Amino acid sequence: MPGEQPREQLVKLNTNENPYPPAPSVGEALRDYATDHLRLYPDPTSKALREALAETFQVASSQVFVGNGSDEVLALAFQAFFRHGTPLDVPAITYSFYPVYANLYGVELRKHSLSEQWEIDIDALGTETNRSGVIFANPNAPTGHAHPLSAIETLLKRVTDRVVLVDEAYVDFGAESAVALINRYPNLLVTGTFSKSRSLAGLRLGYAVGSEELIDGLLRVKDSFNSYPVDSLASLVGIAALKDVEHFEACRERVITTRERTRQRLEALGFEVLPSKANFVLAQHPDYEGAQLFAGLRERGILVRHFNTSDLNNFLRITIGTDDEMDSLIEALETLL
Amino acid sequence: MPGEQPREQLVKLNTNENPYPPAPSVGEALRDYATDHLRLYPDPTSKALREALAETFQVASSQVFVGNGSDEVLALAFQAFFRHGTPLDVPAITYSFYPVYANLYGVELRKHSLSEQWEIDIDALGTETNRSGVIFANPNAPTGHAHPLSAIETLLKRVTDRVVLVDEAYVDFGAESAVALINRYPNLLVTGTFSKSRSLAGLRLGYAVGSEELIDGLLRVKDSFNSYPVDSLASLVGIAALKDVEHFEACRERVITTRERTRQRLEALGFEVLPSKANFVLAQHPDYEGAQLFAGLRERGILVRHFNTSDLNNFLRITIGTDDEMDSLIEALETLL
Repeated sequence: MPGEQPREQLVKLNTNENPYPPAPSVGEALRDYATDHLRLYPDPTSKALREALAETFQVASSQVFVGNGSDEVLALAFQAFFRHGTPLDVPAITYSFYPVYANLYGVELRKHSLSEQWEIDIDALGTETNRSGVIFANPNAPTGHAHPLSAIETLLKRVTDRVVLVDEAYVDFGAESAVALINRYPNLLVTGTFSKSRSLAGLRLGYAVGSEELIDGLLRVKDSFNSYPVDSLASLVGIAALKDVEHFEACRERVITTRERTRQRLEALGFEVLPSKANFVLAQHPDYEGAQLFAGLRERGILVRHFNTSDLNNFLRITIGTDDEMDSLIEALETLL
Repeated sequence: MPGEQPREQLVKLNTNENPYPPAPSVGEALRDYATDHLRLYPDPTSKALREALAETFQVASSQVFVGNGSDEVLALAFQAFFRHGTPLDVPAITYSFYPVYANLYGVELRKHSLSEQWEIDIDALGTETNRSGVIFANPNAPTGHAHPLSAIETLLKRVTDRVVLVDEAYVDFGAESAVALINRYPNLLVTGTFSKSRSLAGLRLGYAVGSEELIDGLLRVKDSFNSYPVDSLASLVGIAALKDVEHFEACRERVITTRERTRQRLEALGFEVLPSKANFVLAQHPDYEGAQLFAGLRERGILVRHFNTSDLNNFLRITIGTDDEMDSLIEALETLL
């Protein structure tokens, strides 16, 4: 189950949405759209959207796959590349949907503990031969830590015979994208989403970038599942969002600035805040339990995310909102502590 | 693969799209939409859309499931209800995606020949006990024949211990909906789409109606695959379309009237036209091969559907367009014959 969606006006810092609206061109595109076209099926190959992504990433459109949210793209990747009987290497703490997909498609997971600094132990992934692949998020969720491109390339030099899937849902908030490596490593698949840095969570638009061979593998599964996973309006809006580079850069810089400011203020309140390259921070306080702080914030109209797992039980995952929203958070925490 | 999408201005009678635009309220809803909301995730339960469908069908919203096109709904139903090792009863000629899903999820099909009148032999379905379910389209595709509600109820009286899935993609063009039976038969699942009678193929919106138990089964698979399969704009547009009952009734009546007119004119040209309750007709000519007519029409800028299967090789499936489009078709056929 995803993070809960509030029914009233609350400060919503629980599902890693962008506090800023999508590019103004998105609204213009929708207002100008001739709705008569909706009577026709969308392009099953989503050519125009894939070309816009290819231009953004400086790759060929044959190296781009799109889907109904990166969750769908990830699910199709599990179905295409990871096999029952040969386990998949995965960090013990990462995006919570990987075990769900693994269960759905009967893929066994080999979980690798994070380091003492809550970082993915990238040297431990892909060291055994009897494995069907490697998957992790970079930046990782919900820790926010990102490995540099050099660490990912070291992994790719070692693991050449199976798919390495790097989930870059949060990459635009300060991490380095592995898309730069896809022409050198045909087994590298990078996934991403319009939900976070493009402020389009409501639209459900995700993508994968990789070698033509991997993209063909995804297309084969997609064509057996849904000929038209991306609707005409989603393509229209996605293309409009990609073209407004200025808005994209401005929003992500504001989120990054607010994140660093929030980190400092949380630390001043005694929190341990894990270094984050994402649009959230994972933080814990030595004197207060996570569940206690979560409930106290909720009473004050502030929603953050608390995980009921033994590893993360003491932490709060706090989405980076506007400066005003983060001021409300800090004020509420000051009264709670 | 779906029917091809043309790149130029052609008379497009090949993918069963509605020739009339969606309800005017669709355009108004999009123009009035505050695009800032797209930064937030959609409601994962699609409550508002499910309630609008529940009102349309006079059922409870807990008896309604929605997905990213009825193709996704059907795929999730295969995953939820049909099992490897116990075959699924299916007509030999029906929607071409059922064998694709069966292959994707490892479900064996037991195919039943159509009658000499190209009708589904409904008495032959569900007669054996070692079966995981029954699936068929009503009206059937690509024949257009529909069984009356009484025949479907006879089947449901006999088959009570496994899922009977009735795919009603084309029901609004003159057939009777089995939704009326869901409260009496908890193993009946009815699927439908906004693509045809609501003129929203470009939007990807499908649904299932059935007992709470079946809807819960679909929700469990959906929650393992994609928390938010229906995006915010699709819900908005879908609800707007459902509320405009007058537009819906007017469009489907026009399609039905044009279908009967087209059938008479095709018969006057010597075609055998199967009786259809859908927005297409399946027709064959005693003196000309299907492939030959298909190619000739294509040269004249008219796209229809031809199936390269031994059973249907001589037929053309012709979508019902506007009266003008059907005039173009008839004129082109007159020059060809």
